[in-house]
Amino acid sequence: MTASLRLEIQPAEYRARREHLARALQQHGYDLMCVFGPTRVAYLTGFFFAATERPVAAIITDDGECSLLIPQLESDHVRQQCPELVNFAVYPEYPGGGSGQHPLLTLAAHLRTIRPSARALAADLDGYEHRWGYRGPKLSQVIDVPLHERLDLIDDARTIKSSAEIALIREACAWGDHAHRLMQDAITQGSDELLVSHGASLQATRDMLSALGDRYVPKAREGLPANAMFIRGHNTANPHGLHQQGGVQVGDTLVTGAYGVVGGYESELERTMFVGEPTSEQIKYFQAMLEAQDAGFAALKPGRRCSEVEQEVRDLLKERGMLAQARHHTGHAFGMEGHEHPFLDLDDHTELAAGMIFSIEPGLYVPGLGGFRHSDTLLVTPDGAERLSLYPRDLESLLIGRA
Amino acid sequence: MTASLRLEIQPAEYRARREHLARALQQHGYDLMCVFGPTRVAYLTGFFFAATERPVAAIITDDGECSLLIPQLESDHVRQQCPELVNFAVYPEYPGGGSGQHPLLTLAAHLRTIRPSARALAADLDGYEHRWGYRGPKLSQVIDVPLHERLDLIDDARTIKSSAEIALIREACAWGDHAHRLMQDAITQGSDELLVSHGASLQATRDMLSALGDRYVPKAREGLPANAMFIRGHNTANPHGLHQQGGVQVGDTLVTGAYGVVGGYESELERTMFVGEPTSEQIKYFQAMLEAQDAGFAALKPGRRCSEVEQEVRDLLKERGMLAQARHHTGHAFGMEGHEHPFLDLDDHTELAAGMIFSIEPGLYVPGLGGFRHSDTLLVTPDGAERLSLYPRDLESLLIGRA
Repeated sequence: MTASLRLEIQPAEYRARREHLARALQQHGYDLMCVFGPTRVAYLTGFFFAATERPVAAIITDDGECSLLIPQLESDHVRQQCPELVNFAVYPEYPGGGSGQHPLLTLAAHLRTIRPSARALAADLDGYEHRWGYRGPKLSQVIDVPLHERLDLIDDARTIKSSAEIALIREACAWGDHAHRLMQDAITQGSDELLVSHGASLQATRDMLSALGDRYVPKAREGLPANAMFIRGHNTANPHGLHQQGGVQVGDTLVTGAYGVVGGYESELERTMFVGEPTSEQIKYFQAMLEAQDAGFAALKPGRRCSEVEQEVRDLLKERGMLAQARHHTGHAFGMEGHEHPFLDLDDHTELAAGMIFSIEPGLYVPGLGGFRHSDTLLVTPDGAERLSLYPRDLESLLIGRA
Repeated sequence: MTASLRLEIQPAEYRARREHLARALQQHGYDLMCVFGPTRVAYLTGFFFAATERPVAAIITDDGECSLLIPQLESDHVRQQCPELVNFAVYPEYPGGGSGQHPLLTLAAHLRTIRPSARALAADLDGYEHRWGYRGPKLSQVIDVPLHERLDLIDDARTIKSSAEIALIREACAWGDHAHRLMQDAITQGSDELLVSHGASLQATRDMLSALGDRYVPKAREGLPANAMFIRGHNTANPHGLHQQGGVQVGDTLVTGAYGVVGGYESELERTMFVGEPTSEQIKYFQAMLEAQDAGFAALKPGRRCSEVEQEVRDLLKERGMLAQARHHTGHAFGMEGHEHPFLDLDDHTELAAGMIFSIEPGLYVPGLGGFRHSDTLLVTPDGAERLSLYPRDLESLLIGRA
């Protein structure tokens, strides 16, 4: 087996990302950029890690050199994952491990070493995010150089997926679909939300690991790479309802969510399902939601703006007299994270381009009745969009335990 | 069944937390505090939600009034979970949903409404954390009043757990122990890390839901409330090694992690296990780690400082000639999050007090051999500490598939 068959981003692509960022830094006159967001660190270096209160930062200079601030406990781990990286500023522990020095002071000293006469620095955030009990100064408080928060320099580049990224998302879609199928097949009257969905996720993961073998390279410490879940009943009228106790009942509307994770990239799939014969009221909202999603699919084209997609979906819902039941915009970009910039929202005027990945998921929410939302993974192509999640969308395919 | 039997924090306790914060605000001369961290919002209000790029904030005034900034998609959800709360600033969508107004501007207007002539505001963070594609201004950039970052006003209070919180953590420990037992019993030669641990977690969750019935109140959208996982082989020499492919082999050192989640509170349990007959080298590090953990248990007493616990553990390891194999400090507080302030670290001089919850988990890491770490959940009591995780710690109890 050659390394290229492994379902992960290759070192050359990580290098290309850093070189792209270095050119942006040159263009804007920054000596270097300090990157704290764990996903951005992984995007630029391939170092995937359990993010805790111990700060990790990637430092990219305007000539493309990369170094990392890491706690001692990750010092072997990062070298195993990223043999190409050789420059590390290692601190003993957070908050100090007896050094008497906060990790951000170690970082500040490191920045002075690699660019003693820097004029201006960029950072995604002005200091480490306050994760898990972390306390610390802003980066701008411990350096003498002007600092600008410029996460856009990385995140704008992340919006256009490479062919390797698209291949991973495509593969993730297949396993999200599979987990959803196993879950749908397992739901019966009385089914517990948690137990049925995790049972299906476990079986889907077993199938996935068996099918992919060594090509699958885990990038996380926890969680299953093929996942499905659902919420049920009136709770579905909350777009982000939490899991609840109590089993599935005839008459329930179910709103599901499923995804795969391959090489650190996710897919998205959501379906509205009905237990038993749906009422005319349920069917009415389901069909309107389906039409709205179709409108979203049709509107997704390079050269148009995010806000135009949202406008077309809203026009359709307004025509159907159901705009009041919508509670959120049509969708969002994603890839390494569940939601990424940009958003299909009236106030987001980002221009669509081939290689972007979006969810299309207009939803209708009727208190006392339920929620109605499908979501699919769409790839913007040179002349339109391709649906990568292939699970059936029609009513007949989404009925459970029909008499 | 009375409401008080439900395994969750009661409304009176949420009120008491807000009143405690209000007194701190008065004392420091703040008109109000703006709280962005999702866990802090849940701690103060009981509103548990799926945190996304859509900002949520709790606003607590110096007279204890509470209001919430929420996206429209959570507007019913928050009222169902927190019927006591009545004051909401609702924005249509992130980034604007057609309003042309960023959610933080909605928040700024809301702050002006409830305190038109405020002199000084506190916030846990200066703006919403940059989650999932969120972009936005700092709060201090959109208000005219001085703002101070004071997450300590909440997080310091969180360090001392109430009797209700301790009861939830105690219950969580029981289910973490149970998940670990099922996992240990299921591990055999060839076992896949992911499949065996999730299978055990699923069975443990089934047992938990069945035993607790309606007393269990889910507080999350995903994840199992009884969980166990492990990593194996040389990978255990990385304190935070990621999951890997390849099955369990005779000779492997395993490092596990298990926890329960009850009412939004977690437990912690980790064990070092051996597959087959351990070598004298494995036994040597195991026993030293066990002694170091004993030293940590003995050192945990009210009135002492976090750094003193760490010092005693290090003294023991130094005596054994194994200080070089330690890669992190002895432990951390926790409760609603996996790690919380303070830390058992040489540079953390917080005084221990009854009601604090700590992990005690000194670890030894030997590249090419493996990692050696137990972790337990300890409650600081008026005259010492009580171990709440009751899983066996001795070598004999942690051998797998011994010939």
